[in-house]
Amino acid sequence: MHESSDEHILEHLLADNNELAQHNREHFDKSGTFSINFMSAPGAGKTSLIEKSLASLLKSYRCSVIEGDMVGDLDATRLRKSGADVFQIATGRACHLDAKMVARLLHEDKIEESDCLLIENVGNLVCPAEFPLGEHKRIVLLSITEGDDKPLKYPVIFRNCDVVLFTKCDLLPYVNFDLAAAKKYVEDLNPKVKTFSVSIKESGDFASWMQWLENELKDYKKA
Amino acid sequence: MHESSDEHILEHLLADNNELAQHNREHFDKSGTFSINFMSAPGAGKTSLIEKSLASLLKSYRCSVIEGDMVGDLDATRLRKSGADVFQIATGRACHLDAKMVARLLHEDKIEESDCLLIENVGNLVCPAEFPLGEHKRIVLLSITEGDDKPLKYPVIFRNCDVVLFTKCDLLPYVNFDLAAAKKYVEDLNPKVKTFSVSIKESGDFASWMQWLENELKDYKKA
Repeated sequence: MHESSDEHILEHLLADNNELAQHNREHFDKSGTFSINFMSAPGAGKTSLIEKSLASLLKSYRCSVIEGDMVGDLDATRLRKSGADVFQIATGRACHLDAKMVARLLHEDKIEESDCLLIENVGNLVCPAEFPLGEHKRIVLLSITEGDDKPLKYPVIFRNCDVVLFTKCDLLPYVNFDLAAAKKYVEDLNPKVKTFSVSIKESGDFASWMQWLENELKDYKKA
Repeated sequence: MHESSDEHILEHLLADNNELAQHNREHFDKSGTFSINFMSAPGAGKTSLIEKSLASLLKSYRCSVIEGDMVGDLDATRLRKSGADVFQIATGRACHLDAKMVARLLHEDKIEESDCLLIENVGNLVCPAEFPLGEHKRIVLLSITEGDDKPLKYPVIFRNCDVVLFTKCDLLPYVNFDLAAAKKYVEDLNPKVKTFSVSIKESGDFASWMQWLENELKDYKKA
């Protein structure tokens, strides 16, 4: 988000995006595709989390993934091995996905054949927060190596999400991260948020996260 | 950076910023203030690095700091304890500092009384790369907990900097990070870059980083 931009232009951009996000949501609901937007700083472990979650989801559901990256397809190539359909969006200079980029993919039949669409946003704790894509749930990952003060410094994204996953919790013995304080900062911003402390290397809370996700998915498919 | 923005508006923004950055540079050179822009993802350790660098720099030089954050002044409060003059810029919705924000501070006499100005940008690996502030040197921090593929995924910022600091190297035994590969990715993008592997908890290469910084500062003050 550029401070120098005319505020009017920015509001116009956000209004356009919200309208297209609504359009995307209608597509998802027509095809019964439960859609999740994963957001975090670079390197917080979005790809690893999606990879591990897919291993479980794919046993019962048809899954698609949208990979948002400035350039390249490293993560897309990696996630294709899971067996999910993976679609790459190259954002170029853009620091976040927007609803228009996702809308362009919606003519790809396979996305709409899915029960669950996992969207990996560009690594950024600022702008993705203001650009909804039409998703049903918004998940923010905070790696415990980033420090427990991040919710205080990047409040918008933590205020406006359904779940916060504290990731890389296997590193807790080696870093100075107060999990209780971080959880409180998040809950103060967002009283309805769910939080889970996970690690892809240890079991820990990962099962609770998967249970939450599968329950939400089941409820959605029933409705 | 918003993909939906008219490309013309974006180019106009960047041209305006470059012009103001040039103006800032003239201010810095008039007062003999060596200026450094520190950029990284959120939580890569910019504040800790600046804090530890200041402890050494302040023995010989007058130092100022500009702290860029969306909201709050946690880092500014922390760095004031060093004895440096610290100026806070609240970027609000903006995901990076720009030259105009820095220009506004330049009437603050104390910045121009400094030998060295350390600027901590907003945690973001995308947009700060395209918005120079007038700085003499650009330093990018990559925490080894973020993964060795980050230069491939966020090439612009790694291509356009003077130094890359691999930070939190005390955690190398606990994460899967190939330091030689990361160094090669950075050098392929940017053959003239200097790289240092540092940790604020161990001495390691920190002394080499400080030596580089103090040499550059001396050369600047001599010229």
